[in-house]
Amino acid sequence: MSRLQDVAKRAGVSVSTVSNVMNGRTENMKPENLRRVREAIEALGYRPNRAARFLKTGQTPLIGLLVPSISNPIFASLAREVEDIAQEEHGYRVLVGNTYLDSRKEKSFLDDLISHGIRGVIIVSPLLELKHFKEAIKRGLIGVSYDRRHIPGTELEVDYVSIDNFEAAHSAANHLIENGHRRLAYITPSSKTISRMDKIDGFLAAVKKARLSETCEVIEVEALKGYGDAEMAELGRTLSKRIMAQQTRPTGIVAMNDMMATGLILGLQSGGVRVPEDVSVVGIDDMFLSAIIGAGITSVRIPLKEMAKTMVNRIIYRLGNPHVRTEEFIFPSPLVLRGSVAALKQGLGPDGMNP
Amino acid sequence: MSRLQDVAKRAGVSVSTVSNVMNGRTENMKPENLRRVREAIEALGYRPNRAARFLKTGQTPLIGLLVPSISNPIFASLAREVEDIAQEEHGYRVLVGNTYLDSRKEKSFLDDLISHGIRGVIIVSPLLELKHFKEAIKRGLIGVSYDRRHIPGTELEVDYVSIDNFEAAHSAANHLIENGHRRLAYITPSSKTISRMDKIDGFLAAVKKARLSETCEVIEVEALKGYGDAEMAELGRTLSKRIMAQQTRPTGIVAMNDMMATGLILGLQSGGVRVPEDVSVVGIDDMFLSAIIGAGITSVRIPLKEMAKTMVNRIIYRLGNPHVRTEEFIFPSPLVLRGSVAALKQGLGPDGMNP
Repeated sequence: MSRLQDVAKRAGVSVSTVSNVMNGRTENMKPENLRRVREAIEALGYRPNRAARFLKTGQTPLIGLLVPSISNPIFASLAREVEDIAQEEHGYRVLVGNTYLDSRKEKSFLDDLISHGIRGVIIVSPLLELKHFKEAIKRGLIGVSYDRRHIPGTELEVDYVSIDNFEAAHSAANHLIENGHRRLAYITPSSKTISRMDKIDGFLAAVKKARLSETCEVIEVEALKGYGDAEMAELGRTLSKRIMAQQTRPTGIVAMNDMMATGLILGLQSGGVRVPEDVSVVGIDDMFLSAIIGAGITSVRIPLKEMAKTMVNRIIYRLGNPHVRTEEFIFPSPLVLRGSVAALKQGLGPDGMNP
Repeated sequence: MSRLQDVAKRAGVSVSTVSNVMNGRTENMKPENLRRVREAIEALGYRPNRAARFLKTGQTPLIGLLVPSISNPIFASLAREVEDIAQEEHGYRVLVGNTYLDSRKEKSFLDDLISHGIRGVIIVSPLLELKHFKEAIKRGLIGVSYDRRHIPGTELEVDYVSIDNFEAAHSAANHLIENGHRRLAYITPSSKTISRMDKIDGFLAAVKKARLSETCEVIEVEALKGYGDAEMAELGRTLSKRIMAQQTRPTGIVAMNDMMATGLILGLQSGGVRVPEDVSVVGIDDMFLSAIIGAGITSVRIPLKEMAKTMVNRIIYRLGNPHVRTEEFIFPSPLVLRGSVAALKQGLGPDGMNP
């Protein structure tokens, strides 16, 4: 690859002359030298070395994106939005790290960011309380946490960008209640994160307010070993079998996310249970596939583009203004109506019993 | 962030002493100095600056991954495999760039890689003939192309890592023929890339050999504007409607990829056409969702992990051995049998006519 020295050699000038051209300091330069440097730059296809340029300032135009797995479609979509905005609006590029909810992998990614001179990172992790994040922030990383609320009393200096997960599940449950459903279920993996607990609380609050606590339930399913790409969909499918085997089935189900709703709906359908005629389903995420699963999954929308924009902009802003206080940004999550919810017929449940 | 100078200051030694410790040159050092440097490193949380270290050698332990869109599930899975292998086996990290099949975006990504001192790139692009790739290779980038065969006579110095796309579609068609199907269709977007044309050729060769050219067809659908995440699935869904409206329907369909097969199957199902009872479908990709769509999509498997491993290893190897000749690596793509294909009943097609 061509370096400054090669350009200088070809042009027959000193390295500092080439450097002056690169930095626009050409006012006192002989026109002949300027011409030769420009020709050499063209001939060698020389481009300035950003690594060198940013080493001086201590900043590299890269940001990190720490995700459990990029092949989870919602994180892939998030990565696309983050990269688009970072690149188009700021000229930054994105380094992606898959951590599979493994704290050692998270720490290793943060360490690598720092040693590459990267100072901004978007963090998707339920492990935010752990030491490795605190240490990384202390060492100068500017962090934005995705999909978690700030917990009062905790001291981690990151921005929080999230939807209100309580509200998301709350509105999903209310939508089913408004459609006449009285026997509701919320399906979730049994391993809990703060976001997952917020959603359960939101579901239970809606159910309690409608005085339906006795006919509604939270159904947990144990996560598989490892962190497989298809895990959520498989858990939804497992739950579809369990629900079909129940004597008294729920008529309305809120799924923790759309991938789980997808597994549930496809599982119910292949078992001969129709969605929404027999069971209504609401998901959370509004992933791009949701529009084509079954009759379309009614889902709580996460405004990924807007959230990605806020996250990237905050990092860039705080890179230039290191003493700015961190903030919490909560985004609205409207319900997107599709075909997976039907009004319950009065007086008769899908199993022929009174609901 | 702590730098070498801070460590030296805290330890009360020179910068070169700290540098010697960092590089393991401690044999002639006073034990007291070594102890103080180590204490200072620990206290300040100092880590060596890789940007600085690799600036000297001209290499950064990063590789680029240029994809049309990371939110296409097959590219997201590829990115996950590439990152896993790069990181676990070589300590490299991955910079992802979305290019949406836009040559300006591709060029900008390649330029950025070079200016960041990144010399290895995995390229997923149908635009490999264009000038910007040639220029980037000339400027020192070490490239590996994914999902394309080398075209004899072309001179681009990249490794080619691909399945045999002709063979993939060929075996998919043969599987349907072996199951008694005589009216086959191959569905594809109308915009052509080399991989897409190879697949069409493979399908047509299988059909011709079975003397079924008269009852088989390639059905093209015009791509949507832009490069949407759900595009392939939507195209499949559009085609399901067109196929259901045909007087004489195919009984077996090969889809260009699994996302298209997904849209097709879900579209057929919601139109009351059963898969595989009424129509059999074979996809190509074996993406992770394929196991849960319908009764599972029978699909030609792309061995992503093995291909990712070869691509990363080639880049690392060629970084250290710049004069190695580029090669082509073609991977086998076995058929994964699931539930989307049924043997055609002799004598009667699904529309009640002789097939």
